[in-house]
Amino acid sequence: MTDPRNDELEAQLAAEPSATRRPTVPALEERLHRLNPVLDHGFVRLVDYMGDDAAIVQAARVSYGRGTRTASTDRGLIRYLMRHRHTTPFEMCEIKLHVKLPIFVARQWIRHRTANVNEYSARYSILDREFYLPAAEHLAAQSRTNRQGREVALSGDEAARVLELLRRDAVQTYDTYAYLLNDDGTGEPADPERSMLARELARMNLSVNYYTQWYWKIDLHNLLHFLSLRADPHAQYEIRVYADAIAELVERWVPVAFEAFRDYRLGGAFLSRQEVEAVRAAVDVERLVAAVEAAGLSARERRELLARLGIHG
Amino acid sequence: MTDPRNDELEAQLAAEPSATRRPTVPALEERLHRLNPVLDHGFVRLVDYMGDDAAIVQAARVSYGRGTRTASTDRGLIRYLMRHRHTTPFEMCEIKLHVKLPIFVARQWIRHRTANVNEYSARYSILDREFYLPAAEHLAAQSRTNRQGREVALSGDEAARVLELLRRDAVQTYDTYAYLLNDDGTGEPADPERSMLARELARMNLSVNYYTQWYWKIDLHNLLHFLSLRADPHAQYEIRVYADAIAELVERWVPVAFEAFRDYRLGGAFLSRQEVEAVRAAVDVERLVAAVEAAGLSARERRELLARLGIHG
Amino acid sequence: MTDPRNDELEAQLAAEPSATRRPTVPALEERLHRLNPVLDHGFVRLVDYMGDDAAIVQAARVSYGRGTRTASTDRGLIRYLMRHRHTTPFEMCEIKLHVKLPIFVARQWIRHRTANVNEYSARYSILDREFYLPAAEHLAAQSRTNRQGREVALSGDEAARVLELLRRDAVQTYDTYAYLLNDDGTGEPADPERSMLARELARMNLSVNYYTQWYWKIDLHNLLHFLSLRADPHAQYEIRVYADAIAELVERWVPVAFEAFRDYRLGGAFLSRQEVEAVRAAVDVERLVAAVEAAGLSARERRELLARLGIHG
Amino acid sequence: MTDPRNDELEAQLAAEPSATRRPTVPALEERLHRLNPVLDHGFVRLVDYMGDDAAIVQAARVSYGRGTRTASTDRGLIRYLMRHRHTTPFEMCEIKLHVKLPIFVARQWIRHRTANVNEYSARYSILDREFYLPAAEHLAAQSRTNRQGREVALSGDEAARVLELLRRDAVQTYDTYAYLLNDDGTGEPADPERSMLARELARMNLSVNYYTQWYWKIDLHNLLHFLSLRADPHAQYEIRVYADAIAELVERWVPVAFEAFRDYRLGGAFLSRQEVEAVRAAVDVERLVAAVEAAGLSARERRELLARLGIHG
Repeated sequence: MTDPRNDELEAQLAAEPSATRRPTVPALEERLHRLNPVLDHGFVRLVDYMGDDAAIVQAARVSYGRGTRTASTDRGLIRYLMRHRHTTPFEMCEIKLHVKLPIFVARQWIRHRTANVNEYSARYSILDREFYLPAAEHLAAQSRTNRQGREVALSGDEAARVLELLRRDAVQTYDTYAYLLNDDGTGEPADPERSMLARELARMNLSVNYYTQWYWKIDLHNLLHFLSLRADPHAQYEIRVYADAIAELVERWVPVAFEAFRDYRLGGAFLSRQEVEAVRAAVDVERLVAAVEAAGLSARERRELLARLGIHG
Repeated sequence: MTDPRNDELEAQLAAEPSATRRPTVPALEERLHRLNPVLDHGFVRLVDYMGDDAAIVQAARVSYGRGTRTASTDRGLIRYLMRHRHTTPFEMCEIKLHVKLPIFVARQWIRHRTANVNEYSARYSILDREFYLPAAEHLAAQSRTNRQGREVALSGDEAARVLELLRRDAVQTYDTYAYLLNDDGTGEPADPERSMLARELARMNLSVNYYTQWYWKIDLHNLLHFLSLRADPHAQYEIRVYADAIAELVERWVPVAFEAFRDYRLGGAFLSRQEVEAVRAAVDVERLVAAVEAAGLSARERRELLARLGIHG
Repeated sequence: MTDPRNDELEAQLAAEPSATRRPTVPALEERLHRLNPVLDHGFVRLVDYMGDDAAIVQAARVSYGRGTRTASTDRGLIRYLMRHRHTTPFEMCEIKLHVKLPIFVARQWIRHRTANVNEYSARYSILDREFYLPAAEHLAAQSRTNRQGREVALSGDEAARVLELLRRDAVQTYDTYAYLLNDDGTGEPADPERSMLARELARMNLSVNYYTQWYWKIDLHNLLHFLSLRADPHAQYEIRVYADAIAELVERWVPVAFEAFRDYRLGGAFLSRQEVEAVRAAVDVERLVAAVEAAGLSARERRELLARLGIHG
Repeated sequence: MTDPRNDELEAQLAAEPSATRRPTVPALEERLHRLNPVLDHGFVRLVDYMGDDAAIVQAARVSYGRGTRTASTDRGLIRYLMRHRHTTPFEMCEIKLHVKLPIFVARQWIRHRTANVNEYSARYSILDREFYLPAAEHLAAQSRTNRQGREVALSGDEAARVLELLRRDAVQTYDTYAYLLNDDGTGEPADPERSMLARELARMNLSVNYYTQWYWKIDLHNLLHFLSLRADPHAQYEIRVYADAIAELVERWVPVAFEAFRDYRLGGAFLSRQEVEAVRAAVDVERLVAAVEAAGLSARERRELLARLGIHG
């Protein structure tokens, strides 16, 4: 799995750039084809992209037509779209990544259905002997208050023992896998006395910390949704680090949209009806208006905020 | 278009009920097959449904397994799911509606892509002479501040003039349509001296206030998203009344989920990072806590709220 | 995972049926809630359904309006829709299944994106000690000609050895999993001297032949597409048996649509442009027409076939 | 709607090309941003693209891994994928178009749900006075045998009369629209004595042959499905000409995939189970094999064909 990929990678990095009249983002071009390491053997690699911040604006302007031409700068328009959840212009950008990741991470990831995927097939091919072992400091006890959370890290001794067991089992399950495949690396039996078990059967012995890889293509709107769930503290650490690596690429790709995403999604908060009422009862309107102005919000945003909180004038 | 539908309708209402072991909602059964009138000639009619509040809980419990069995009542679990945007259990309920609506409303509606649709085809069949005319009080001037909004209602005289023009053009475009079709109602030419223009061509003369109809099937999660956008004051009045009619059905169907939707979506508010900071600076924490308790929020919800606002106790 | 489900199952089977005015299919009602065993520990269980053959016709008629009312019987219309790939009326039926299946089967299955899924979460909960072992006669050697296929079955001795290894590793990885969880079954540590490793970490040691389970909801059109790929001889045996179990339910549910699916999809064949030309060159038109008539195809179907083969009268 | 777009267009054509390491297709670059006229006022304009034939191969190879590296040339692999309906690698290419089209064509087009769309909004903005009138030779009578078809063209006199009526009504409905908008082109009332009717209301008077426009982004797999339905003789002429214009771009973009699409989809034929049996009964196997060889099919394809037809030996 490893070598051919590396060949291709080198070839792509060595190739002369082409001339194009498509929107192009120099800050992202620098990262094309390069491996961004994640976890112990994983990576995120940018394969291709379509569109940029201006492409979002362009799509929004076809919707709003002459209407918005004069009023807004591009940045203002993108922030307006993000704030008001006008999501379709963000679908006009697309990104393609090559990702290597543990199977249990892939199983969470694939639940994001609005994406295109080509995964390495263990029916056709043989998986490499590469499995994920957490760094000792990421081995943590089950949270008692949050069923899907981790709590305090394990002590050094306990962590070492856990890693030893995980490694032992991973090595053994791969050894069995290789024994059952009985493939000498050329498709011929290593031991001619034994059968070569069908790949689609032998792979069932591998544990879900083995690495798989895929090409994954998604539009920016759905990618931001992915990031809002997977770059979140509630997400499992092992997928969060992938989300973080992708977020770093997105920030280079569409810096204005990403800033708006950070302000209006990642850093924001949803309040329920009851919570809005509680805030309204507990807030000092003058201080609120002063704070809003100090934060640089426009008069329009201030009006919108007061309206959302049900504070009338 | 009208008569055969009515025949079917009568037949379905007259039929004996069947016995089923599927989840059944008596409050919704009452509304099955009945027309709920919307606008001047439109309707929403419930054709079928799958699942109920308990089906949401059931699906959530398979995800969370033994984990959540003891902790939560069903209502608490549904509200937890809604609050934390665990959306997939809501996809486990499905509803099917028969809707008659103006073409320009259908054009907005169809943008909700995660749904199944069978629309009346004007390539195959002949549209009825039914077009939408707003009630006089819904004729309003273009808003100066909001490009997609309405402002003050027109005066009675102006409204009457507008309606007269809309009616005149609708009648004329249908007369032309009927003339071009030249169909005597049995598929034979009304005027044997003239051709019968292909239906797919003749229909191009009709204006977008003509009524079409479709079967529309959607899961509850996507339906609630539809309602959050289309039952909203920013939505055009002519689609909002359909959303309102559907909301009334949803409340009968899944009352607990709908209450949670009202509390956590419709009645709630999203704050940006800057707005959260402003609220934090302007809020009196003791009053906030008191208001939250008065509103009946649990200790857990209170902790979550303070955390979201970045207030550390 | 097992017991609570069984409790629910018993309750649902014991409950009195409800009265409904929704389309109801007695032959399918019989199968509601019952486990259909698949593989050694898996099952398919029908949870709910919406629609029937008549619902397909009803949706098609709204599309085609008066147009098709007189011409076709319901069966003829459904076969026409299937033949001409008018797929949307089949989307008007929906089915919900509870499935228990090995993780590696789940990984193939989930690639069908147009479906709703709630899967048991090993982040929240503890997986049971249940893993898949093939029956000896399904252990086969890797095909030399087809990279994703199996060939001759292994001999009894070899099969026994393979199963011994698979069992040994599965038992060991689960033992390690249980040791790392250190859960006494009540959420308290079995061994108070050791930490309870977070569930989301411990599960990484399990192999992909461990069983998971999910609720899966899908419309009939997408289900038939699933069946066309997964009930196919090219599909891996371990997913094919699930597809077969589902096909048996579909045949009870919508017998007319399923018969059409069998005739026009499963049993049919696609010919390329070059293959059509070759068939045209090699076919005896008179014998073809005679065979078509003997098979009971209508004059219309015969004309369509000749047109598709480019044979002109 | 027209002028600003043209400004942009000129700017994009005048801009210097950028350097990129992304896959680039010179034959398609030539067509970037240029208007391809369709119907009387419509167009298809290529805005952006991602991927090429090699990107399909690259994605397939990650799925099939080492397995297929040596066996197949790129062309052979793409044809294999198309033949066996391995559709996901084709999803790895994406295209973005700017399209101007009559509303009634847009209504058919939008039924293809797996795409991204930003449409010009008549709630925000004012539609141009541009409507579709068929060329006289495309005015045809309703087919008597096919409810969604056209038959013989109308005579010159009848066609002239039809066009006169269509033009008269289109002009009148736009005059009314403009009167109701009462907009002097700057957002101020043309006639200060009258209200400016809300845009979202006034637009309801326009007929469905008025032009709208949108940005439309779709992956290659779904685009080919669109073309298979819309470049088909059964599609309405007015959408078929758009499909033809797009097909011409696709052929430049991914010539190998498009050739395979033509051979295995457009030019192919599906036979039902009964039809396969009839062909088997009527075909001369020796002539078939000879014809297949003459057509240049490989031994593998020949075997596959015989197997599909159920011919053994």
